[in-house]
Amino acid sequence: MNDFSHASQLLKEHNNYHILIHSFPDGDAIGSGYALCRALRSLGKNANVVCTSPIPKMFSYIVDSVEPQDFVPETFVSTDVADLRLLGDNYEQYENKVLLALDHHGTNLRYSKYWVIDPHAASACEIVLEVIKRMGVSVDKEIAKCIYTGISTDTGCFRFANTTSATLRTAADMLDYDIDAAEINRVMFETKSRRRIELERMALDSMSFYLNGALAFVIITNEMREKAGASDDDLEGMTSLSRQVEGVKIGVTLRQKDDGEFKISVRTHPPVDAAAICTKFGGGGHVRAAGCNLKGTPDEIKESMLKVCTEALESCSWLG
Amino acid sequence: MNDFSHASQLLKEHNNYHILIHSFPDGDAIGSGYALCRALRSLGKNANVVCTSPIPKMFSYIVDSVEPQDFVPETFVSTDVADLRLLGDNYEQYENKVLLALDHHGTNLRYSKYWVIDPHAASACEIVLEVIKRMGVSVDKEIAKCIYTGISTDTGCFRFANTTSATLRTAADMLDYDIDAAEINRVMFETKSRRRIELERMALDSMSFYLNGALAFVIITNEMREKAGASDDDLEGMTSLSRQVEGVKIGVTLRQKDDGEFKISVRTHPPVDAAAICTKFGGGGHVRAAGCNLKGTPDEIKESMLKVCTEALESCSWLG
Repeated sequence: MNDFSHASQLLKEHNNYHILIHSFPDGDAIGSGYALCRALRSLGKNANVVCTSPIPKMFSYIVDSVEPQDFVPETFVSTDVADLRLLGDNYEQYENKVLLALDHHGTNLRYSKYWVIDPHAASACEIVLEVIKRMGVSVDKEIAKCIYTGISTDTGCFRFANTTSATLRTAADMLDYDIDAAEINRVMFETKSRRRIELERMALDSMSFYLNGALAFVIITNEMREKAGASDDDLEGMTSLSRQVEGVKIGVTLRQKDDGEFKISVRTHPPVDAAAICTKFGGGGHVRAAGCNLKGTPDEIKESMLKVCTEALESCSWLG
Repeated sequence: MNDFSHASQLLKEHNNYHILIHSFPDGDAIGSGYALCRALRSLGKNANVVCTSPIPKMFSYIVDSVEPQDFVPETFVSTDVADLRLLGDNYEQYENKVLLALDHHGTNLRYSKYWVIDPHAASACEIVLEVIKRMGVSVDKEIAKCIYTGISTDTGCFRFANTTSATLRTAADMLDYDIDAAEINRVMFETKSRRRIELERMALDSMSFYLNGALAFVIITNEMREKAGASDDDLEGMTSLSRQVEGVKIGVTLRQKDDGEFKISVRTHPPVDAAAICTKFGGGGHVRAAGCNLKGTPDEIKESMLKVCTEALESCSWLG
C-alpha cells in the first residue's frame, strides 16, 4: 500500500484539505503538516493545518507565514499521526473520514482509507517530501525549513539511530535551499528559558536510580512546574534527561498533567525496547522512545514501571 | 598553498611520522590524527599520533585498536593545530620542524613548511579525508569512525552554523561504511556521569547575568570539581551551558586550572565574534567559540571580560 505515486495522485485530485496533526505537536508533526499545506496551496488548493492544542511559540518561523484559509473542509489527510486518538478531544469525528495518512510509525493503526507508512524513515517529513516532489511541486525555502525541522527534531539533530545516510542527504538537500539550519537548531535544541533551567535543576534533584543504575526515574509534578513558572514549552525534551546518565538503560519520566494523571515517557538504550514496555500500559511508540498515561501516585507508578522494566532488562540479559 | 594533491604527494614520499595533535584533544583532533595515522600505515609507513596530554577514555573506540609503533621519528605533521603552542609543554622542540599542517582554523599561524588550511571546513577531519583519498587510500570502517567523530564533535552534532550541505554529505558517506554513528554520538553527547551531573548543577548555581541578560558567566573552580569528584573528562562541553540560556549572546565559562590560573571559554550567538573578544586577551579561536587564559580572582576576570564584552555587544548594536 506504500504507493507514493498513488498518494500524490490522490492529493492532486481532491481539494479543501484539513491536514490533521497530533495534539501536543512536535517538530515533525508541525513540519510535515505545514510542508504539505504549502505544497497543496501552491497547486491552487485550499488547505489548513488542524491541531487541537496550541502550536508552541518556538515554531512561529514555520506557522506565522501561513494564514488560515476560510473554506468548508472536504478532504482529511493526516501526517505523523499513528493513532486517531492522538488527535486529542473529539477525535471520533474523524473516524472513517481520513482519506490518506502519511506516517513513519510502524505502529500506525491504518485508520485511513489509504496510507503511506515507512517505519524506516526517520521522520514523517521525509515521506511528505517525497509525496510533494511527486506532486510536481517545487520545493522552496519555506518548505525546506519545514522538512529540515521535522528531520532534525525527530533525529535529535541527527544523533539517534534512526539517522541513516539518506536522512543526512535529505537534510543536506534542504540546506541547499539556503535555510538557516543553525538558527533552527538553536531554537529547537539550544535555547533554554531561565524557567526551564530552574525546572531542570529540580528534575535532577528528583532523579532516582534502580536496578544497579540501569533504570532512572525523573518526576515533574505540577507543583514543580508552578515553582519554576514553567510553561508547556519549557517541558519540551525533558524526557531525555534520565537516559543521559552513564549506565542508565531505561530512563522514565513521570510528568503530571493538569488532571493529575501522569504522562509517562520511556527512553531506552539498545537493546531495550521502549515501545514494548509502554504497550503493557496501553501506550506505544518507537523502539527507543515511547509513552503511556497512568493514574496513581508517583510511588505507585514507579512500582508498576519497576516491575515491567525489570522484566524488560532481564529479557535482554542486562540483569543477572 | 591549499594544494591537496601536493600534500598527499608529500605524505606518500616521506616516512616515520609523528602526527601532532593539540593537548587536551577533542574529537576532531583525535579523529583527524588517527585517521591520518591509519591511512599512512595502510601505505606501509610508520606512524604514531603524539599528544602531550592523555586521550579521554571516551575515545577508546578510536585509540585502542591503534598500537603505538617503535621507530625513530623523521617527519612531523600536525592536524587541527592552529598554533604550535597548543601542543603543550616543550612545544619549542617542533619549531621549524613541521613539514605539513592540515587544519581548518583561519587563525592558523603557518608554523609549518607546507599546509592545507580551509576555514570553510567544519572540521580538520574533512581536510584529512580529502588528503587520504588523494593518497589513494581506501577509506574503511575504522577511518570512517574517526572522520565521523571529528565532523560530529566539531559541529555539535550538525547543530552549529559551520555545518554545510557538504558537511552533511561527507557524514552521510561515512555512515555508508556501516559505522554505528548513534553509538558514537551517544558517547560524545549524551552520556553524562553522575559526577558530571552534580558538577552541572553547581555550575548552574554559579551562573550570573549581566548587560540585561546578554552576558552570562559560569565559574568552575577546583573546589567544585573536587566536591563533585569530577575528572577532566567530566568537564567536556561544560562551556556551552551559559550560551544556552534564552537571551544570552555571550556565554563565558571560567574554569580553574591546576595551577590556579583560569581557562576562559567564550561562546557567542550571531553576530558577536568570540575570537575577537579572546584575541584581546592573547587567545583566539573561531567566530562562535574561542578561548584564552587569564590570571586573577574570578571577580577580577569577570570585570575585565565584562568591559570587553560590553564593547563587543555595543559594536554590533546589541546594547543601547
